[in-house]
Amino acid sequence: MNLLAPIERIGRDPRTGGYRRYVWNDADMELREWFAGEAAARGMAYEEDGNGNQVAWWGFDSHARSTDEGGSALLLGSHLDSVPDGGAYDGPLGVVSAFAAVDRLRADDFTPSRPIAVACFADEEGARFGVACAGSRLAAGTLDPARALALKDRDGLTLAEVLTARGRDPRTLGRSAWLDRVGTFVELHVEQGRSLVHSGDAVGVATAIWPHGRWRLDFEGRADHAGTTPMPDRRDPMPAYAATVVAATRRAYEEGARATFGRVEVEPGGANAIPSRVTAWLDARAADDAVLARMLDAILVDAREAASASRVRVEAAVESASPAVTFDHDLRTRLAAALDAPLLPTGAGHDAGVLSAFVPTAMLFVRNPSGVSHSPDEHADDADCAAGVDALVRTVLELA
Amino acid sequence: MNLLAPIERIGRDPRTGGYRRYVWNDADMELREWFAGEAAARGMAYEEDGNGNQVAWWGFDSHARSTDEGGSALLLGSHLDSVPDGGAYDGPLGVVSAFAAVDRLRADDFTPSRPIAVACFADEEGARFGVACAGSRLAAGTLDPARALALKDRDGLTLAEVLTARGRDPRTLGRSAWLDRVGTFVELHVEQGRSLVHSGDAVGVATAIWPHGRWRLDFEGRADHAGTTPMPDRRDPMPAYAATVVAATRRAYEEGARATFGRVEVEPGGANAIPSRVTAWLDARAADDAVLARMLDAILVDAREAASASRVRVEAAVESASPAVTFDHDLRTRLAAALDAPLLPTGAGHDAGVLSAFVPTAMLFVRNPSGVSHSPDEHADDADCAAGVDALVRTVLELA
Repeated sequence: MNLLAPIERIGRDPRTGGYRRYVWNDADMELREWFAGEAAARGMAYEEDGNGNQVAWWGFDSHARSTDEGGSALLLGSHLDSVPDGGAYDGPLGVVSAFAAVDRLRADDFTPSRPIAVACFADEEGARFGVACAGSRLAAGTLDPARALALKDRDGLTLAEVLTARGRDPRTLGRSAWLDRVGTFVELHVEQGRSLVHSGDAVGVATAIWPHGRWRLDFEGRADHAGTTPMPDRRDPMPAYAATVVAATRRAYEEGARATFGRVEVEPGGANAIPSRVTAWLDARAADDAVLARMLDAILVDAREAASASRVRVEAAVESASPAVTFDHDLRTRLAAALDAPLLPTGAGHDAGVLSAFVPTAMLFVRNPSGVSHSPDEHADDADCAAGVDALVRTVLELA
Repeated sequence: MNLLAPIERIGRDPRTGGYRRYVWNDADMELREWFAGEAAARGMAYEEDGNGNQVAWWGFDSHARSTDEGGSALLLGSHLDSVPDGGAYDGPLGVVSAFAAVDRLRADDFTPSRPIAVACFADEEGARFGVACAGSRLAAGTLDPARALALKDRDGLTLAEVLTARGRDPRTLGRSAWLDRVGTFVELHVEQGRSLVHSGDAVGVATAIWPHGRWRLDFEGRADHAGTTPMPDRRDPMPAYAATVVAATRRAYEEGARATFGRVEVEPGGANAIPSRVTAWLDARAADDAVLARMLDAILVDAREAASASRVRVEAAVESASPAVTFDHDLRTRLAAALDAPLLPTGAGHDAGVLSAFVPTAMLFVRNPSGVSHSPDEHADDADCAAGVDALVRTVLELA
């Protein structure tokens, strides 16, 4: 049985087969109705907060208050939005699996000792406004509402304008009261890699999210005629960029880390013109902050040496730096034991990474045969998805 | 005295200081009027052929016919159009110097023994429709008129539409009768390099135009998440492209040749996405066909090895291949002796390269202090431009 069948047609591009579910677009609106309908069908109290995050409560009145000791609820869930031409599983698997786990527990007449909630966080991918985990960051208070409201999409519409057009009140953006009622968050997610393929497990428990840095490198040379300028007279930034890519790739292998140049812009960009400038973005991640810092330092030295050899200048600017997130040690140890599941780190950011600073948080990963993600090829076998639901059921039995 | 002062404001972008003179645009039309006016002011018979090439005749009725033995006229000139944000000298220097030489010869009461003509070839840079030397190639019959008429500019207008809008008849495109009246062509051009700076000469004589190849290289990998995909699991085309650039640069140095990657496109182009594809254009030139072929073969082997190491595919396609042009041996030797000027090759294509297959052709280069071309920084000192005019005067005295 394909858990994702009920929403598989929503927001799928017929040409690419990929999903285009961006916050507040038509597909996203349809998914919001679907989520509210799932809550209603189960008699779960439903709310959408001012940031567009949706929550369905089992055994908890959504208008109840948190205790003085903090929240007690066990929160499950993930997100329903996608990257451009994304896959079916990244996000939605965590939402549909949470509802399926609730159904299983209720069918077994289980009565939780604490409230259970299922959440769908808004705009996890940041595909429309450029800020990832916007919904959870607004809820947690780590993204300034004024900054968020001014973000623009590719059509030049601000988030404030889009919220108004969708009948939402932009003034309600900001910290979410319902989060105070949460004592634990467990996000199930398709694995975006092949660690579980290698270990032979259907489900794993996350240890940490790798620290992540994005650097912009500007290699500045001198435009010139490709036909008439001898190699020794050139100040061509392209070979300097290329040598930097080669060096960064080697460093990432050596450190067991990751380095990616996924975006590069060349000026003036003519096939017969030596470029005046090459701008490239380096996405670098490693298992811990020290390794990432060491690798980045080494790559920048490589870039400066390559630039010097080509008689060009290079400037490096940090565009974002996300330190390592280590998930709650007790919680992950307890879940790994209860589920008999391996522990593994991930290189991707998640709402769980945002919330882990505020409540004990864990992530469960479901095996992905190809390891491919952010692509229509993203996949998880039905049997592994069922194992994921089973893991969530056992998580609730363990924690509630 | 700046020879180019009369046209320096035409088509210059006030922001960049570069010229934007593209065939049949407003600046080009204004330059056409200027050229026709220069011919009229000197009482030279003027014609514009069906391809937009302009010719001004001294001592020759433009309606006269060629002799059975071929043409007898000595043709001078170059072009007035520019690349985007091009410099002031590439092209125009050859046209204004030709008119200045005619003035000097007439002031000295020189009577040529053969007709003298000054030409402005249309669309040498190919900036608007993408085909370089279009005017001279149409005149010489090496560019198919039907193909040329169907070429589109960036606004989607065909050459046929543009010609009609400018009051020209698209049906008159094709071989130019006036070319049959030409027996020798000498094109003066600013040097696009620093050979004359190194040799300490104001003027040089061209030996040859280097052969030139443009290859498109498609590196095809697999899109993936930059954060979660371990290096050994990747099929990232960017490191393969980068290694190819590094190798090509080294080969070009070793061969005393030239290799340039001035244009590169990345899909999907997100900073946190491993690319699925990198498409790059290699512009390669060398002193002779054998060296160019050897270098290209070696670079393609490098590219395939780099692709294999990154587990991606590479496909290479020739986009253009221009064999070496060797200018007429007797003519260049005679001019080098008459002008006491050094002989030097060039890596750039020119109308002279097109015409050299049909009539004995030579090129004179004027020193360029920085060697920079196709840029607002392109320059020649006034004294060197005067030496260029002097060289054209002596050329006419030698040949006519």
